[in-house]
Amino acid sequence: MKTVSISPNGTEYKLPTEAESANELKELKKITAEQRKFGRKIVAVQGMGFVGCVMAAVVADAVDEKGEPLYFVHGQQRASLRSFWKVPVINRGIPPVNSSDAEVPKIFHRTVVEKKTLRATWLNYAYKVADIVVVDIQLDATKPTFGDASQGYCDMSAFRDGMKNLGMHISTECLTLVETTVPPGTCENVVKPLIEEEFTKRGIDIAKNPPLIAHSYERVMPGAKYVSSIRDFWRVFSGVNEKSKYVAREFLNNILDTEKYPLTELDNTNASELSKVMENSYRATNIALTLEWAKCAEKIGVDIHKVRAAIRKRKGTHDNLLRPSLGVGGYCLTKDPVLANWAMGAIFNIDDKLKIAINSVDINDTMPLHTIDLIKEEYPELKDVKIAVLGVSYLENLGDTRHSPSETLIKFINEFWAIVKTHDPYVEFWAEMENVPIDKSLSDALKDADVVIFAVGHTQYLELDPDEVVAMTGKKPLIIDCSNFLNDEKIKAYLRAGCKVKGVGKGHIGKLVLGAG
Amino acid sequence: MKTVSISPNGTEYKLPTEAESANELKELKKITAEQRKFGRKIVAVQGMGFVGCVMAAVVADAVDEKGEPLYFVHGQQRASLRSFWKVPVINRGIPPVNSSDAEVPKIFHRTVVEKKTLRATWLNYAYKVADIVVVDIQLDATKPTFGDASQGYCDMSAFRDGMKNLGMHISTECLTLVETTVPPGTCENVVKPLIEEEFTKRGIDIAKNPPLIAHSYERVMPGAKYVSSIRDFWRVFSGVNEKSKYVAREFLNNILDTEKYPLTELDNTNASELSKVMENSYRATNIALTLEWAKCAEKIGVDIHKVRAAIRKRKGTHDNLLRPSLGVGGYCLTKDPVLANWAMGAIFNIDDKLKIAINSVDINDTMPLHTIDLIKEEYPELKDVKIAVLGVSYLENLGDTRHSPSETLIKFINEFWAIVKTHDPYVEFWAEMENVPIDKSLSDALKDADVVIFAVGHTQYLELDPDEVVAMTGKKPLIIDCSNFLNDEKIKAYLRAGCKVKGVGKGHIGKLVLGAG
Repeated sequence: MKTVSISPNGTEYKLPTEAESANELKELKKITAEQRKFGRKIVAVQGMGFVGCVMAAVVADAVDEKGEPLYFVHGQQRASLRSFWKVPVINRGIPPVNSSDAEVPKIFHRTVVEKKTLRATWLNYAYKVADIVVVDIQLDATKPTFGDASQGYCDMSAFRDGMKNLGMHISTECLTLVETTVPPGTCENVVKPLIEEEFTKRGIDIAKNPPLIAHSYERVMPGAKYVSSIRDFWRVFSGVNEKSKYVAREFLNNILDTEKYPLTELDNTNASELSKVMENSYRATNIALTLEWAKCAEKIGVDIHKVRAAIRKRKGTHDNLLRPSLGVGGYCLTKDPVLANWAMGAIFNIDDKLKIAINSVDINDTMPLHTIDLIKEEYPELKDVKIAVLGVSYLENLGDTRHSPSETLIKFINEFWAIVKTHDPYVEFWAEMENVPIDKSLSDALKDADVVIFAVGHTQYLELDPDEVVAMTGKKPLIIDCSNFLNDEKIKAYLRAGCKVKGVGKGHIGKLVLGAG
Repeated sequence: MKTVSISPNGTEYKLPTEAESANELKELKKITAEQRKFGRKIVAVQGMGFVGCVMAAVVADAVDEKGEPLYFVHGQQRASLRSFWKVPVINRGIPPVNSSDAEVPKIFHRTVVEKKTLRATWLNYAYKVADIVVVDIQLDATKPTFGDASQGYCDMSAFRDGMKNLGMHISTECLTLVETTVPPGTCENVVKPLIEEEFTKRGIDIAKNPPLIAHSYERVMPGAKYVSSIRDFWRVFSGVNEKSKYVAREFLNNILDTEKYPLTELDNTNASELSKVMENSYRATNIALTLEWAKCAEKIGVDIHKVRAAIRKRKGTHDNLLRPSLGVGGYCLTKDPVLANWAMGAIFNIDDKLKIAINSVDINDTMPLHTIDLIKEEYPELKDVKIAVLGVSYLENLGDTRHSPSETLIKFINEFWAIVKTHDPYVEFWAEMENVPIDKSLSDALKDADVVIFAVGHTQYLELDPDEVVAMTGKKPLIIDCSNFLNDEKIKAYLRAGCKVKGVGKGHIGKLVLGAG
């Protein structure tokens, strides 16, 4: 049996032994007692993932009017092979996530090393002593059939285990604050009964001690303002009863800049949970709409990007219209409509479900196939065609590859036996596509390419000189611009160099730019 | 044969005789010659409908830097039974449309009576002398099957006749500026060939004299800023060739406030036409999304209006999210996605059409049935149930009933043999529902009502005192709030009076407001 958890940079961390766990327990007791003496409340954050670890640091960084820390935070991470490494890494003051936000390493160093208000642990004891548990367990949607999100579902077993575990350990006065994006109905219909069941087993009278459960969702934006997007932004919350709402309100007011961004309190946790997934479904639908119109626009000689700019002039009513692109990636827009649609059936037995949002996911998920269609217009047989994909992350100037549309693109390109090379300055190792190497050198990736796909708008790609690109291929490659990355000057340069240029939402760009194909 | 055109206020106008037409021709020639002497260009506006007549006045009101009128405008209206009355009415300086914008009667008086730069006529001679023809012919979508907009189509025969008529009369230097919302592709594929055909018949060499055709769409907002929404707002345009673009650009710069709202020029008329219908499809889709979520929200005890407010806090990315309501009405959002979808197939042979937008129209069109479902929860048999519908227009504080969702609501209520009474302070006569009388007195409409539907948010309705409403019914009616018109205080008052209150996107409101059903 494996007993080593390996961090992304390859360092090996042995899983803790029983003796180490016994020592850790002593340490936790000691630290908790010390922190109580300072008058600080104890917060446990469940799950040191993308959101949880930074949320833990934000809580640990919160201070009162005198500048004194308000909370001590146990960052709880189970001793799993996959994630245990995060515990020793965090405890050295190092964030367990990569971010372009310089504040991320700073806030970890500040809270772990300087203030000593954040510490990671693998023990459930963290829950036992917590005044508040912030739940940041990952919860995914499964889409068993590509392009049919209506079949999507949410496997809640790990989440349920997590809630059960809380019920076994937390005190009756502890607030469970769910921050995970969950299917609407989860707090009332999953978290509450599970904790009540465990309370009852522990002999707690849940009529007298109804569990305190609240929901508040983050609106994290990966990138340069990652920490700030958690702390300095609008928050929505609710609770399963008045006391839960009260405790959640006080906590959120303490850790967030709610003077500038006042809290929005909704009637119940169903509303707060629904708000989050509707928010992202709104975005997903906006993109799907533009994608459908982009495909039609291409066929009638219209540049949808210019049309979009014209429409967005109507500020306040039309400026949310999103940009067509290779497709939609990331963790939220690809799954949240599915969580919602699934919950309506599975939790509430509602037949009449969220078709617009679900169809939007299908359109977005299958959109990378459209880029392949653009290539096929020039290379009807893709076999052995050399295709360079520039960018594999899901967002510009970031290395986040979760559900990246480049993943779908390359999977399908491979099915046609084309030969793919990839490049991404922000991605060294592509976790979701382990067998697809990322060329470190752009010229290696471009060498001999018949087709160059500008898949992601990394600044480096936007600044590329067309003649250099063409020279690196050693050919006159077909250029595919997936989201209006090339301006008219660059397009003209590619055309002068003998390339064909095509664009998502633009079609055959030569016609638009030069008035001729 | 009828020879009388009757205006909305009942005045009868005889259709012109041949002698009158001969006199009118002399008059037109005289006026045109006079106006040419002033150095003014001659503009003909084709169609004195909702947009055309105000557009004509805006053009006639345009002045140069010295305050001198730039254009003389012939408002062309065919001598039809339905619309001829507009000619004599306009020529008295009276607008042929009702509007809550005080500027509408003013601009007609100013241009017709004071400046004498606008005059209506029924003769095609207006086109013969025009430097620019602005096309404002009405063009509708037909949806043969309720709830299946994918079958929708556009009967262009009248529009084609209009274009043919222009081709028979206009000079080769005349710009045809299409302002009508048309299926994308219309200028290139319908207007251009029709005018070319007529030019050729007239012996004009279209290779040397290609017709000048442009498209620019209005973004009229009915209501208090009607004139301003034409003149002082962002405009998009394009033309079928460079000269068309040049003439259109100069004209639009002259008549609109393009210093504050610079023009957006697109590559071709397909783009400009697509932009308009996409703009409205975006709105239609946003509403459809909220409607779907509203129905689910009701079933899980969530007030979607509060959720919407929470989501819209994210300015710039989420604040376009629209409001759930009885349904979607008006002239644009109900038809523009259909025009677009139909054009993709009928004009461009594109199979892969605009499903999101079309499904949205279906959701929006059928939404009034949801209000009936809310009633049926209380009255499973609607037969003989007395239902008062407050508001039959499609927008608050306006009398515009075009494609009003109240129309759909009442048609279906009637199918169930319920008894409907209607009230609307802005509507005296319901043109689309001639057999449905509008009660002038609110108390008459409410008397004996078992159900009171707040269908439209006219200010008068928002200010109604719940106890008075209940007293006027003489019962304890079921109150249906179609779009968050009742605040919590009003809802509590209705509940205290013994009424049940339900809301679109809220469900059984008592539960939310009082914590009990």
